[in-house]
Amino acid sequence: MTAEAPAGLPIALDAVGGDHGAPPNVEGAVLAARAGVSVLLVGERVALHAELGRYPGSSALPLEVVDAPDVIGMDEHASDVRGRTEASINVCTRLVKEGRAAAAVSMGHSGATMASALLTLGRIKGVERPAILTHLPARGGMTTLLDVGANADVKASYLAQWARLATVYLKVLEGREEPTVGLLSIGEEDHKGSALVLEAHALLRGLHGHGINFHGNVEGRDIFLGTTDIVVTDGFTGNVVLKLAEGEAKVLFGWVRDALKSSLKSKMGGLLVRGALRGLAERMDPSTYGASILVGVRGLAFIGHGSADAQAVKNALLRADRAYQGRLVPRLEAAFGD
Amino acid sequence: MTAEAPAGLPIALDAVGGDHGAPPNVEGAVLAARAGVSVLLVGERVALHAELGRYPGSSALPLEVVDAPDVIGMDEHASDVRGRTEASINVCTRLVKEGRAAAAVSMGHSGATMASALLTLGRIKGVERPAILTHLPARGGMTTLLDVGANADVKASYLAQWARLATVYLKVLEGREEPTVGLLSIGEEDHKGSALVLEAHALLRGLHGHGINFHGNVEGRDIFLGTTDIVVTDGFTGNVVLKLAEGEAKVLFGWVRDALKSSLKSKMGGLLVRGALRGLAERMDPSTYGASILVGVRGLAFIGHGSADAQAVKNALLRADRAYQGRLVPRLEAAFGD
Repeated sequence: MTAEAPAGLPIALDAVGGDHGAPPNVEGAVLAARAGVSVLLVGERVALHAELGRYPGSSALPLEVVDAPDVIGMDEHASDVRGRTEASINVCTRLVKEGRAAAAVSMGHSGATMASALLTLGRIKGVERPAILTHLPARGGMTTLLDVGANADVKASYLAQWARLATVYLKVLEGREEPTVGLLSIGEEDHKGSALVLEAHALLRGLHGHGINFHGNVEGRDIFLGTTDIVVTDGFTGNVVLKLAEGEAKVLFGWVRDALKSSLKSKMGGLLVRGALRGLAERMDPSTYGASILVGVRGLAFIGHGSADAQAVKNALLRADRAYQGRLVPRLEAAFGD
Repeated sequence: MTAEAPAGLPIALDAVGGDHGAPPNVEGAVLAARAGVSVLLVGERVALHAELGRYPGSSALPLEVVDAPDVIGMDEHASDVRGRTEASINVCTRLVKEGRAAAAVSMGHSGATMASALLTLGRIKGVERPAILTHLPARGGMTTLLDVGANADVKASYLAQWARLATVYLKVLEGREEPTVGLLSIGEEDHKGSALVLEAHALLRGLHGHGINFHGNVEGRDIFLGTTDIVVTDGFTGNVVLKLAEGEAKVLFGWVRDALKSSLKSKMGGLLVRGALRGLAERMDPSTYGASILVGVRGLAFIGHGSADAQAVKNALLRADRAYQGRLVPRLEAAFGD
């Protein structure tokens, strides 16, 4: 690190992970460093220095390259992280474990990032399974959703723990005092849902006022309506929800674009409304939040889209730094230490 | 029925069911009758005759009122159908059972409609659990999704049976020869998913070429992309998907409308594109298909939105008539009789 590095630890970025390799990662790191966040670029040293060379003045920024000759490819198995000690994601999580980095951030293989974080960092005491927490745009702001894919088969106790983790997360990252928690079900009534949901409902009801603000059951429509701040569900349903939401937005905006080209009249109108609709598309853009967090591990680990651009990488790094500055992990440990 | 009634049996409509009671049901029945479908209007006789009186010339249409003094309210329990023999939905399903009506159609209490159909009509031999089948708009047309709420907890064998039911349904109703079937999961790879999905995948793989055209696993995004004609999933995930899809479309179109009012320039453009966007909103409108079908029972039962308008009621009646004319139930029975 250079002398200008800000106080605290740098963020370890898996700088070769993702669909596009080093370029968006390095550009994102440069943007984050200019915004005051120090970053360790983890990956093949020569390639990363070459990429950094494209940014004049980057040598004065709080950026450092950490060599990692290996990388887990997007088409490899998550279990391949075992034994691949020099793989970039494993180097990132080890830097966190050893107290040399504040957080690990990767736009690479999601399953591998999750496995590496879990194997290297372990779980927070009292948390049976870590979950992936993400954000979806909603009326009035955003909805925080978990688990979106770490656990396809779950127990009711996991859902209750995730509600507690997400509550602390929103307090630290968004300054929300008493975020509301909804349990995803197929009816608002307490007695509706699967056997799992009925059991989780009873657990969450018991935690209401003790670490969480339980609203009750919510339905699929409530996610976009923003009925509750947090929605908890199993990792199967959550992953389907996330991918459906992204897919639907993409298809609907495509249809809006097509409609605006359907006649000369609508084409003329389309030119006038283009700016307004662009703002809306940005609101729907997953890069706004940059990455999802793996909550429940003993350390900070962020997982982004493989297709992330430099802006998404920058936002993920800033978010990771905020979680670190807000002492998220110690506060999660304290919440489960009672 | 009047002398002008078309060949075959009339459709029994629960004419007092739904959020708005008789008016949209009676208007929808009038529209369907004008299109050549004969309808039995089931409900409180005096009220229905009064409502029919608002349509001059309706006495010449193939419409008949069948008295049913009782109705299951939208806020009652589904189990209330037991013993309420004079409730409109029970009269409808009994008319089907007795061979006096071709199908039962209700915009009333979904759970009660399902329970009434199952209790009165029974299951097709070989089908363990009936499922609710619906349609979602998709790139290139529509995606057929089931189960969307009849069964929150399922076995893998149900999913395999639903794939077969939906395949026959699409052949009969849409003339699709070899509709493709996707199994909803959290990754396209065969080995990804919950324990339930892995087991269902093996069953569906075994049925490929024997009554279904199995594509493999699909993800949430594939529903709007239209990757497969049919998507099978448990009734919990399916219900979340359906309500999320409807909720997201509503919120996104609301944002588009807001964006078009955000400045004088976009307001002017908004006037020019209004017609094109209205066509798009209609495409997303659930009333296009009118109602979902409960497949797997020994008779035709259609379940619509409580908020259905006359157009949705009309479309549901036309769809029910098409299923009857296409001999859907005998063909489903034949498919399971092999």
